Amino acid sequence: MENWLNSLQTDTPQEGFELAIKLARMGVKYTQPDMEVLKAGREEYGENAEFLINASQVVATHYQTVAEANHYWK
Amino acid sequence: MENWLNSLQTDTPQEGFELAIKLARMGVKYTQPDMEVLKAGREEYGENAEFLINASQVVATHYQTVAEANHYWK
Amino acid sequence: MENWLNSLQTDTPQEGFELAIKLARMGVKYTQPDMEVLKAGREEYGENAEFLINASQVVATHYQTVAEANHYWK
Amino acid sequence: MENWLNSLQTDTPQEGFELAIKLARMGVKYTQPDMEVLKAGREEYGENAEFLINASQVVATHYQTVAEANHYWK
Amino acid sequence: MENWLNSLQTDTPQEGFELAIKLARMGVKYTQPDMEVLKAGREEYGENAEFLINASQVVATHYQTVAEANHYWK
Amino acid sequence: MENWLNSLQTDTPQEGFELAIKLARMGVKYTQPDMEVLKAGREEYGENAEFLINASQVVATHYQTVAEANHYWK
Repeated sequence: MENWLNSLQTDTPQEGFELAIKLARMGVKYTQPDMEVLKAGREEYGENAEFLINASQVVATHYQTVAEANHYWK
Repeated sequence: MENWLNSLQTDTPQEGFELAIKLARMGVKYTQPDMEVLKAGREEYGENAEFLINASQVVATHYQTVAEANHYWK
Repeated sequence: MENWLNSLQTDTPQEGFELAIKLARMGVKYTQPDMEVLKAGREEYGENAEFLINASQVVATHYQTVAEANHYWK
Repeated sequence: MENWLNSLQTDTPQEGFELAIKLARMGVKYTQPDMEVLKAGREEYGENAEFLINASQVVATHYQTVAEANHYWK
Repeated sequence: MENWLNSLQTDTPQEGFELAIKLARMGVKYTQPDMEVLKAGREEYGENAEFLINASQVVATHYQTVAEANHYWK
Repeated sequence: MENWLNSLQTDTPQEGFELAIKLARMGVKYTQPDMEVLKAGREEYGENAEFLINASQVVATHYQTVAEANHYWK
C-alpha cells in the first residue's frame, strides 16, 4: 500500500482524534481493499446505530495510542 | 470540522467523565455526519439496552485516556 | 448533572470495584437519561446473559482505570 | 455486599488468572444479583460459543489489571 | 484446576503470541469446563467468521499482557 | 507452526500498522487453521460491515502493543 502514515505526532488533541479516525478507517481498508464490496457492505449495515457505536469503539482504542504517543498534549 | 477539543485536562474526575462522553459522541459524529441518518438509526436501535451498554463501553475506553491525561486527578 | 464523582481513590480493591460498577452505570445514564426508556430497554434485553457479559466488560474496563488510580492498592 | 476482595496480589500467574475469573463473575453478579434470573439467562445463552468468547474477553481485561498489579510475577 | 501456567516470560514474540492463544483458550475452559458442552457450542457457531474475529480479539488482549511482561522482547 | 514473528520492532508507524494487521490475521489462523473452513466462514459473513469493524478493533488492539514496543516511533 502507498505511504499514508509517517508519524503519530499531532499538534493538538483534536488532530490526534482525527488521526484515530483515519487509523480506524485504514484498519477496515486493509481488511477489505475492494471498494465496491466495502460500499455494498456499508449499505446493508452502515447506517444503523450498532455500526456507529462499534466504529466509535475502534476510534477510542486508536485514540488511546495516539494520545499516549503525544504525552496527552501536555 | 470546527474546533471542538483543545485539551484533555479537566478540573475533576466527573468533568473528565463528561469529556469521555463527548469523545464517544464525536466518534459517532465523524463516522456519520448526516444528522438525519443518525437520528433514524437511533430510533431503530438507540433505546435498547444493547446500544446503551456498547455506548457505555466506548465511554469507558475514552475515560481511560482522559484519566491518564489527568494523572487520575491525584 | 449533579455532582456524583469527586475522586477515583478508594480504600480497598473491593470499593474500587464498586466504583467501577458505578462508572459503568453512569455511562449508561448519561447516554439515556430518561429512566422510563431505560427500564423498558432493560426489560427487553436486560436479563439475558449477553447483556450481563457486556455490562461486565464495561466494569472490567473501568476497573483498570480505578486500579491504576489507586496504584493497585499496594 | 459482603467482603470478597482484599487484594489483587497473588503468588503465581495462574492464581492471578483465577482471580481474573472471579472478578469477571462478580461483575455479572453485581449487575444481576438475583440468582434465579441469572440461571435462567444462562440456560438461554450460556452454553453457546458466543457467550464463552465474550466471557473470555472480560477475563482477559481483568487479567491485564491483575498482572500489572503483580508486576507480571517477575 | 491442575497447574498450567508458571510464568508469563517467553523467549520470543512468537512464543508470547502462542501463550496468548493458550490464555484465551483457558478463559473459555474455566467458564465452561464440560468438554461435551463446549464442543456442541462450537459446532453451532465455532466455524463462522464472527467467532473467529471475537476469539482473535481475546488473543490480542492477552498479547498486550504477555508483551508487556516481556518488555516487548527488546 | 513455522516461524512467522521475530520482532515487534518496525522502522515506521505504517510498518507497525501492517504488523498489527498480520497479528490480527494470525490470531484467526491459530484458532481455525483449516483454510477451507476459514474461507467458507468468510463467504458467509466476511464482506459485511460488522465483520470489517470487528476486524478493525482487533487491529487497533494489536497496534497499541506494537506502538508501545516501538516507543511510538519518536
